[in-house]
Amino acid sequence: MTQFSDLDALRAACLNLPSGSDAAAAVVRERQAILTKPAGSLGRLEALAEWLARWQSRPTPRLDQVDVLVFAGNHGVTHQGVSPYPASVTVQMVANFASGGAAINQIAEVAGAILRVIPLDLDNPTQDFTQAPAMAQAEFLHAVAIGHSAVSADCDLLCLGEMGIGNTTAAAAIAAALFGGGGSRWAGRGTGIDDAGLERKRSVIDAGLARHAACFGEPLLIAMALGGRELAAILGATLAARQHGIPVLLDGFVCTAAAAPLARLRPDALDHAMLAHLSAEAGHRALTEALALHPLLDFGMRLGEGSAAALVVPLLRAAVACHAGMATFAEALVDNRG
Amino acid sequence: MTQFSDLDALRAACLNLPSGSDAAAAVVRERQAILTKPAGSLGRLEALAEWLARWQSRPTPRLDQVDVLVFAGNHGVTHQGVSPYPASVTVQMVANFASGGAAINQIAEVAGAILRVIPLDLDNPTQDFTQAPAMAQAEFLHAVAIGHSAVSADCDLLCLGEMGIGNTTAAAAIAAALFGGGGSRWAGRGTGIDDAGLERKRSVIDAGLARHAACFGEPLLIAMALGGRELAAILGATLAARQHGIPVLLDGFVCTAAAAPLARLRPDALDHAMLAHLSAEAGHRALTEALALHPLLDFGMRLGEGSAAALVVPLLRAAVACHAGMATFAEALVDNRG
Repeated sequence: MTQFSDLDALRAACLNLPSGSDAAAAVVRERQAILTKPAGSLGRLEALAEWLARWQSRPTPRLDQVDVLVFAGNHGVTHQGVSPYPASVTVQMVANFASGGAAINQIAEVAGAILRVIPLDLDNPTQDFTQAPAMAQAEFLHAVAIGHSAVSADCDLLCLGEMGIGNTTAAAAIAAALFGGGGSRWAGRGTGIDDAGLERKRSVIDAGLARHAACFGEPLLIAMALGGRELAAILGATLAARQHGIPVLLDGFVCTAAAAPLARLRPDALDHAMLAHLSAEAGHRALTEALALHPLLDFGMRLGEGSAAALVVPLLRAAVACHAGMATFAEALVDNRG
Repeated sequence: MTQFSDLDALRAACLNLPSGSDAAAAVVRERQAILTKPAGSLGRLEALAEWLARWQSRPTPRLDQVDVLVFAGNHGVTHQGVSPYPASVTVQMVANFASGGAAINQIAEVAGAILRVIPLDLDNPTQDFTQAPAMAQAEFLHAVAIGHSAVSADCDLLCLGEMGIGNTTAAAAIAAALFGGGGSRWAGRGTGIDDAGLERKRSVIDAGLARHAACFGEPLLIAMALGGRELAAILGATLAARQHGIPVLLDGFVCTAAAAPLARLRPDALDHAMLAHLSAEAGHRALTEALALHPLLDFGMRLGEGSAAALVVPLLRAAVACHAGMATFAEALVDNRG
């Protein structure tokens, strides 16, 4: 299994990233130009084929193996009443994933994707970040390593998701520490907290920010102090995918916040990642703007579980199928523009 | 085959539409509320399941048979230089559809949909609408009837599309006649006309509007005078789907304009239809606003062929799969909110 000996080793890995293949992307563009359609008329489908080729370093992108990894974690901060659901729901939902009853099970099947759920020490929630760092350094690095090791090098596209009662609070705190503003800017209703709960959630985030302000210069320390194990694992998986040449679909608010420290360490660190959707969670739009991510879908979803990431997989399959399967003007004997 | 003896018979059919099933929709809403997810967290997926149930009149919507119908027609107005492609491309693209080389072939396969292409008298283009009505009444009614008859009553979801060099000019003219404004409001670049061509296209539309202004009080006459056979067939297919209880996915600008006369005859006539995407074609946004249609996707596409309609089918499959396949809180022994 991957191990990172200390934060410096992880930081070094985050700074030493491979580029995508300009050559593969150029081959895709050249072919797009001669396929039987007006130039550019497939819009974002053409951009998606090029993006997949670039990060797979393949002139003909493919989606033979699509993996969905859902990481689950529990959060000490839930004791402060930041969610309408009890923390017990995290482990219950993991059981629901295992028996095939959750939304992600159905959506992954439609997507032709392989779902794997990885619970992270659910019996031991992270510390309440208003009292202490959410994780000790070794604990954080271990969670990152679990995420990193969970990525199969054979995968053609990786969908990332999460489950964890309380984790929109952690995500909002990370976003605030990375990009400024407090609980009122970043906190949303998560699974559906009421007005009083939302006020509490904002205060809890602000308390966490006040306690850990000293570490805000180091994105990885922010993830350690304010995040959670499933967020750390997503960070690790996103890093591993870049190293293996695997394009990534990020899911929603929590997933985006989990990967965001990478982009603060290196501005192009998420170029191999596409954002599946704009979540209905209040802070997501500001987070996508801060990271210059352009969501594929805007369906008012806010479930997590990788549900939106898996949902958009067929759109990428269509992009790949058009690119590989369409005839050229010459092949089809279709007159090109006069 | 369906026949409409005259315009009055067609108009009567367009005014006598069945409603969807409130009961089926209510069953869906009740089930959504107890599935293992925060209330409303699947956003538009929940709305889509309800919409399918309502128009299929089934408490559990299904998508076992999804059909894509692509109608093709030729347009006399192409002689005026409104497209960068020669009219010969219409029949060549129909051959490309038949041999599996077009975008819609690939996308329909990803969607698990059955594609059927129906060419409408391609050797005899419609009249140039700046000189005469595009179609005589019998010709128009025949094209509507072909579209109407092409719809299989066994179908669970109908995707509509078109192919026809010059047909964004016809579509823009219909939109202008129905909703006001001239060529400058509604004309876009279609398959990619240059600036001079766009000016010509606007003038051609304005000339057509001036010639046929007397018929603007009757939406079906507008479709006859300014439209085309493939647009008339889409109108007929949209009507047939409503009569058979089949939800419809409209594709882009041409498809929306083709169905728009139905909405002018009866404001709820397109309630069984969903707009697949916001096209990059210039007039589409205004047309969606005029019809209060909310596109599912915004991918900058402008190909037609039913490409966007087929593209979004897997999103509807996910909606149906979640609705049918998810466990309830009680079944999964997951604690609901406290």
